[in-house]
Amino acid sequence: MENILRMAEKAKASNAYLRPHFKTHHSAEIGDWFRQYGVSKCTASSVEMAQYFAEAGWNDITIAFPYNPLESDEISKIAETASLNILIESEESLKMANSLISSPVGYFIKIDLGTHRTGIDPANTQLIENLVSGTTNHVSFKGFIGHAGHTYSSSAESEVQKIFQESLEILQNLKKKFGGIISYGDSPSCSMVDDLTGVDEIRAGNFVFYDWMQVGIGSCRIEDIGVCLASPVVAIHTERNEVVIFGGAVHLSKESVDENERKSFGKAVRLKEHGWEHEVIGNVKKISQEHGIIEMNSNEISKLKIGDLVGILPTHSCLAADLQGHYYSTEGEKIKKIIKN
Amino acid sequence: MENILRMAEKAKASNAYLRPHFKTHHSAEIGDWFRQYGVSKCTASSVEMAQYFAEAGWNDITIAFPYNPLESDEISKIAETASLNILIESEESLKMANSLISSPVGYFIKIDLGTHRTGIDPANTQLIENLVSGTTNHVSFKGFIGHAGHTYSSSAESEVQKIFQESLEILQNLKKKFGGIISYGDSPSCSMVDDLTGVDEIRAGNFVFYDWMQVGIGSCRIEDIGVCLASPVVAIHTERNEVVIFGGAVHLSKESVDENERKSFGKAVRLKEHGWEHEVIGNVKKISQEHGIIEMNSNEISKLKIGDLVGILPTHSCLAADLQGHYYSTEGEKIKKIIKN
Repeated sequence: MENILRMAEKAKASNAYLRPHFKTHHSAEIGDWFRQYGVSKCTASSVEMAQYFAEAGWNDITIAFPYNPLESDEISKIAETASLNILIESEESLKMANSLISSPVGYFIKIDLGTHRTGIDPANTQLIENLVSGTTNHVSFKGFIGHAGHTYSSSAESEVQKIFQESLEILQNLKKKFGGIISYGDSPSCSMVDDLTGVDEIRAGNFVFYDWMQVGIGSCRIEDIGVCLASPVVAIHTERNEVVIFGGAVHLSKESVDENERKSFGKAVRLKEHGWEHEVIGNVKKISQEHGIIEMNSNEISKLKIGDLVGILPTHSCLAADLQGHYYSTEGEKIKKIIKN
Repeated sequence: MENILRMAEKAKASNAYLRPHFKTHHSAEIGDWFRQYGVSKCTASSVEMAQYFAEAGWNDITIAFPYNPLESDEISKIAETASLNILIESEESLKMANSLISSPVGYFIKIDLGTHRTGIDPANTQLIENLVSGTTNHVSFKGFIGHAGHTYSSSAESEVQKIFQESLEILQNLKKKFGGIISYGDSPSCSMVDDLTGVDEIRAGNFVFYDWMQVGIGSCRIEDIGVCLASPVVAIHTERNEVVIFGGAVHLSKESVDENERKSFGKAVRLKEHGWEHEVIGNVKKISQEHGIIEMNSNEISKLKIGDLVGILPTHSCLAADLQGHYYSTEGEKIKKIIKN
């Protein structure tokens, strides 16, 4: 909750609004937490997720993933009741959106801010101009959207600040030339840059839970991590300082970070009655389908026995959360989320 | 189906029976395919999965994951109606199983064959003796179980053969000394070793689908891969030979293999009306939550347009399959699987 409050206050101070990315939690109940802070718009990363949140009463949603023409009927259906935006990055896509989507939708033009995953090179002004002017009665231009995903490989706060400034300049130049609003949103920038003035809409999502990767980047402190996997100890190998948990790739994902030539798939912490302690007591160094192997010193191992639960702070909370059927609050209440079937 | 037939025939020729690991597909319907080949026993990797298959009529199940005392009630419940085996690797666990499990179960002693993930060092005969003799009225010793997971990092067939021979020798020595049966089961050995004589029970699972990793190891040919993710093309970047699909870590997992300093998260193939072609047309070189980035030559790219579907052969089918809500057969029929909720 504090993570949400902090971001909501930063948005207000920066004269922007928050359109949080709900792909981190995929949960209508957690979505409701945001409403308490005045949030009324959200971001989804798939049509299925947009459907889920539309059914949960969200009526202003951006699908922040390049438009997939094969889902035009589903998009049209959501847009019948909700204000819906899609992402466009080619004339081909825009043409298909115009002919295949039957309800009014908005579109953002996806700009490549340097991550080179998706988006248009901002220097390609001819294409951008064609896309801006491609607005029709029911498919209308809304603005420019960018995701500076290269902040994830930053090693210093100054580097993140620099990426933010460069990205903002790119987007502001486009706005000046073509109009529309600026939607911006990787969690490292949105967490580490104090003043986001110039951005119209903040689209970050991970900050609700944060994770060990974000601690490494410097976006948050370990105390800010809001999700932890309670994992049973099933084997102890004192001879090699290892503890085996039922907590593997199907629970945490295979996402890892490199720490001095060592991989980390998550960090072990002690659980307490409500929640967990903020001291790392072991590193999840290997992971297979259901097994997690924690490296732990002999003193910590000596306090554990088979059947004990240890907490695991995930390396990437969005992927770990996707793998769960539900969550529990620190008060023990079950929190539901989207079900794949 | 051919993959199942081949393994069932090999088991018969080796005078062993097949207890396939169902963690690859998690599907009662696919489980039924095995029954056609006379298979009546199966392996699960979690208590939840054992419950699911018990409900689907499987009445002889081994949970091939170290016993978790916290799930003793659920284990007792399954064992009321099914013949159930658990894995033990410490006296502590065995004591807890004896006191906490209320229905009759069998136990296998988990032996570390050199993978050093879980299991007992086979030289630790004192511990093994204590565990064998720990059998009681309702918790009884069944044999020795091993998983030679280090075959996954083998680069040559001869290496896999060698690991199999060493593993078999370890397990046969234990069997001679203490009795019980030998349960053995990584997919590379079971696929690449022609004669598995000496093994009593074959526990492999991945072979039902295989995947790109197994092609790399040499367990199968690309034609044997039995699962493929149909993924829509959402962006094309000809300037850097890249195609972006809606197919990311939440669909394929972040499992990758290294190929000459290049990572592969899956291989792209052309889809056809029923199934897919067996020629690789691109490499999934990067993956984020929902995005997959395929590297593809300009000739192949020129044949694609936004909204087309490409097939992706997963790097690790067990993890990719875990992430799906269901499958489709090549005839278009929906195949259900376990649902997490």
